[in-house]
Amino acid sequence: MNDYDLLVSKLKKISVLGSVNGILGWDHQVYMPKGSSELRAEQQAMIAGMTHEMFVADDMGKLLKKLSKASLSEDQRLVVEETLEDWEKARCVPTELVHKYEEVTSKAFIVWEKARAKNDFKSFAPVLQEIINLNVKIAELQYPGMEPYEAMLKGYDRDLPLKKIASLLAEVRAGIKPVIAKAKKQDTKALFAPVSEAVQHDFNLKIARDMGLNQDLSRLDVSTHPFTTGTMLDTRITTRFDHGWWGAISATIHESGHALYELGLKKEHFGNPLGSAVSLSVHESQSRIWENHVGKGLAFWKHQFPLLKKAYAPHLKDLTLEKFHKAINNVEPSLIRVEADELTYPMHVILRFELEKDMISGKVKVNEIPAVWNQKMKDMIGVDVPDNARGCLQDVHWSGGSIGYFPTYVVGSMLSAQLYNSAKRKIPNLEQQFEQGNTAGLLQWLRTNIHQHGRRYKKQELVKKATGKEIGSDDYIKYLTEKFTRLA
Amino acid sequence: MNDYDLLVSKLKKISVLGSVNGILGWDHQVYMPKGSSELRAEQQAMIAGMTHEMFVADDMGKLLKKLSKASLSEDQRLVVEETLEDWEKARCVPTELVHKYEEVTSKAFIVWEKARAKNDFKSFAPVLQEIINLNVKIAELQYPGMEPYEAMLKGYDRDLPLKKIASLLAEVRAGIKPVIAKAKKQDTKALFAPVSEAVQHDFNLKIARDMGLNQDLSRLDVSTHPFTTGTMLDTRITTRFDHGWWGAISATIHESGHALYELGLKKEHFGNPLGSAVSLSVHESQSRIWENHVGKGLAFWKHQFPLLKKAYAPHLKDLTLEKFHKAINNVEPSLIRVEADELTYPMHVILRFELEKDMISGKVKVNEIPAVWNQKMKDMIGVDVPDNARGCLQDVHWSGGSIGYFPTYVVGSMLSAQLYNSAKRKIPNLEQQFEQGNTAGLLQWLRTNIHQHGRRYKKQELVKKATGKEIGSDDYIKYLTEKFTRLA
Repeated sequence: MNDYDLLVSKLKKISVLGSVNGILGWDHQVYMPKGSSELRAEQQAMIAGMTHEMFVADDMGKLLKKLSKASLSEDQRLVVEETLEDWEKARCVPTELVHKYEEVTSKAFIVWEKARAKNDFKSFAPVLQEIINLNVKIAELQYPGMEPYEAMLKGYDRDLPLKKIASLLAEVRAGIKPVIAKAKKQDTKALFAPVSEAVQHDFNLKIARDMGLNQDLSRLDVSTHPFTTGTMLDTRITTRFDHGWWGAISATIHESGHALYELGLKKEHFGNPLGSAVSLSVHESQSRIWENHVGKGLAFWKHQFPLLKKAYAPHLKDLTLEKFHKAINNVEPSLIRVEADELTYPMHVILRFELEKDMISGKVKVNEIPAVWNQKMKDMIGVDVPDNARGCLQDVHWSGGSIGYFPTYVVGSMLSAQLYNSAKRKIPNLEQQFEQGNTAGLLQWLRTNIHQHGRRYKKQELVKKATGKEIGSDDYIKYLTEKFTRLA
Repeated sequence: MNDYDLLVSKLKKISVLGSVNGILGWDHQVYMPKGSSELRAEQQAMIAGMTHEMFVADDMGKLLKKLSKASLSEDQRLVVEETLEDWEKARCVPTELVHKYEEVTSKAFIVWEKARAKNDFKSFAPVLQEIINLNVKIAELQYPGMEPYEAMLKGYDRDLPLKKIASLLAEVRAGIKPVIAKAKKQDTKALFAPVSEAVQHDFNLKIARDMGLNQDLSRLDVSTHPFTTGTMLDTRITTRFDHGWWGAISATIHESGHALYELGLKKEHFGNPLGSAVSLSVHESQSRIWENHVGKGLAFWKHQFPLLKKAYAPHLKDLTLEKFHKAINNVEPSLIRVEADELTYPMHVILRFELEKDMISGKVKVNEIPAVWNQKMKDMIGVDVPDNARGCLQDVHWSGGSIGYFPTYVVGSMLSAQLYNSAKRKIPNLEQQFEQGNTAGLLQWLRTNIHQHGRRYKKQELVKKATGKEIGSDDYIKYLTEKFTRLA
C-alpha cells in the first residue's frame, strides 16, 4: 500500500469507529432505557478516546508530514493539507487537558440541568467559569496570540474571522429591528390540533422522502430535541410531537435539510476531508434553506397542503392555505430561542454572540450574565425575562463546552438566503416546480454547488462559486424585510 | 491500584466496548436503514477485533498468571481462574486464523441466504466444508487430542461432555417418540386473528413488564427473528407480528426469560465471570421455563386471558380459556424447527445434533447431508421434506460458524423442566400465585438459585444446588408425556 492509500485507510478506520458514536448518541436520545445512561457515557467516552488517540498518534503525524512533501494529485494534496491542519490543532491540546475538559463538561451538564430546573443561576456560575477558563486555555494553545473568542469561533466555523462575523451580525441586528417592530402576530391555534402521532409520523416521513431522503440510507424517529446524526451511509433525523403538528413538520424539514447535506457528500471520500461538511454554518444553511425558504413558502404548500389536509382529516377542515401560510409565519417576540419565529430568531442568536464575546474578553463577569441577558432581551426583542430558566440558563451549549457555536445559526440563515436567491436565478421556474411537488431541482443545485465538494473549498470560496459573491447580510435582510412586510 | 483491581478494571473496559456491539447488532436487526449494512459490518468487525486484542494481550496474560499465584479471596480466585481459562482458550487461536474465520463466515452467510432462497444446497456445500475444516482446526488448537465435535460443544456449553449430551438426547428421543405418535392436532385458527400491531405491541410489553422486565433497563422492539441482546444495564428483546398474535406473545415470553437472566446478574460484577451467564443451555432453560412451563400453562392464563380478550377485542370474542389453552399447545409434526410445537421441537434439535456429530467425525460427507436430513425427518418426526430450503438449509447457524450450538436448545428445555419441578416443591402454591397474576415468586426463586451466581458454579454444581440432582432427562420426559397425554 502506498503512503497516500495508507493515510486514506487510516482515516477511514477512524471514521468507521467514530460513526459508532453517532449510533450510540442517537440511541441514547431515541430508544435507550434510561437506566443505562452511565454505561452509555462510558461507551461513548471510550470510543471517543480511541478515535482521538488513533488520530493524534505520532505515526499519523509522520505520515502526514511525509506526504505533505510528496508529489500528489490536487485532491490528494488537499486531503493531506486539511488533515495535517486538523492533526496539528488536535495535537496542541495535551491528553490530560482533553480528559479534564471531558470530565468538567460532563459534570457541568448535570449541574446545568438542575440549575435550570431550579432556576438557580448561582449554582451554575462556578462551573461556567471553569468551562470559560478551560476554553480560553485551549484557545491559547491552538492559536497562540489570537483573541481567545476568535479562536473558539474557529472550532465551529473555521474560515470566518470574528471581525467579519461581528459586522455581519451587527448589520442583521440593525436591519431587522424595524421589521420586528412592525411585524404581525398571526392566529396559530390551528397548528395545535390534536392529530394522532402515528398519522403525523407518516406525513412527516412522506415530507422527508419527498425532499429526497432515501429510505435505504435514512430514517425518522422521535426525541425530546430534534437532531440529525450520521454519515452519508446512514443518516438519521428526529422530530418531536409535543410542540404541535406544525412544530413537528417544521423540525422534520429542518433536519432533513441537514441530512441531505450529509447524504450528498461523496461516498468514495468517506472519512476524509473531501467527504466531510465544510463548516457548521454551511450545514445550517442547508437546514434553513429547506425550513424557511421552501418549507414556509406558499409554493411548496400549494402542492403539499391538500395532501396535509387529507392526511390530518378531519382536524384541519376549516384551515385554508392562506390561513395556514400566515400561521406558520407568525411573528411573536418570545423568550426561548428554539421556539422563536423566523424573524426574531436571529436576535436571540446575536444576543448570545455579543454576550459570549464580552464574557470571554472579561468585559462581562459570569455573575453579571443574567442582568446583561435580560437587558439585551428587552432591547433587542422587547420582552421581559421572568426567570433565568427562561433566560440565560435555557441553552445546553455552554454546559457542553460550546462557546462560539451560536453565530453559526445566523450565519447559516444568512447564507441560506444568498443560496436561495442564487438557485432562483439559475432555475427561474424553481417555485413553479415546488408547486408541482418537485423539489428535486433545488436539491440537485445544492448537491452540485455545495454537497459534493465536502471541504474542497474554504467557505468564502465555496460561497463565491455558488452565488457569485462572498457571504453577506444583504440577501438575508432583504428577504426578511420583504417577507414580513408583506405579511404584516 | 492493586493487581486484582487492575484486572477488574481491564475486564470492565473490555465489556464496555463489547457491549457496544450489542447495540450495533440490535440496531442492525431492528432499525438500521438497509443501505448501511456494509458500514455496519465494518463497525462491528472493528469493535470485535479491538475487544479481542484487548483480551488476548500479553499484559493480560501476565497479570492473570501473577494473580493466579497471589493470595486472594474466594470470589477473586474464581474470577482469576475463569478468566485465565478464557484467556488461554482465546490465545490458542492465531490472529490470522481469527480473521480468516471471520472472513469465511461473513461470506458464508451471504452464500447461505442465496442458497436457501434458490433451494440450492450444492452452492452452499463447499462453504460449509470450509467452515467445518476451520472449526476442526480451531477445536484441535483449543483442545488437543479431544474429539473435535466435543471441543466444539464446549464453545457453547463448557461443562457437559459429548457422551453425556448424547445419552441425554437419546433418552429424550426414545421417551417422546410414543408421545408424539399419540399427540393431538388442535384448532389454532383463532391464534391468527388480525389484531393490530400497535395493540399487540402494548399487550406484549405489558406481559414482559408483568414478568419483571424493568422499564428503566429494557425495551421491546420488532425484528424478523426474535432475539435478546444486552447486559444487566440495558437488555433488549424483540418479537415479531407476522406469525400470528400468539406467535408474538410466545416469542415475547421466551425472550423475556432470557432477558430476566441477564438483568438478574449482579451489576457489581459487570464484565467479569461472576457477572456473566454460566452457559447457553442454562440461558435457554430460563427462556423455556417462562415460555413453556409458565406461558403455555393454564394457571398463568387464568389471570391473563380475560385481559388479553379485552385488549384484543373484538377479535377473540368466541375464544374460551380452554380452547385457547388447547390451541397454544397444538402438536403438529412440521418442517421448520423455529415454528415447531413444544413436543416435536426436541426432535428437530436431536436430528441436528446427530447429524453434526457424524459430519464432524466424517461419517456423513457434506454432500450426503440433504439425504441424511430427509431420512431423519421421516424417522423422527414423520414428515417428508419437499426441498432443502425447508430442510437442511433452514437454519442460519452453520453459515455463521456455529457447529455444536443446537444441543443447548434441548439441554435447556430439559433443565427448565427440572428447575420448574424444583421451584414447585419449594413454593407449593406457585401456580395459585400465577392465577393471581403473580409470577414474582418464580422470578425470585430463579434469581436466588440461578441468576445471581453468574459463573460462580460449574453447570452441574449449579443445577445440583438448585434442584438436588445433576441434570437429567427424567423430569423433561415425564413433563412432556403427562402434559401431551392429558391434551391428546
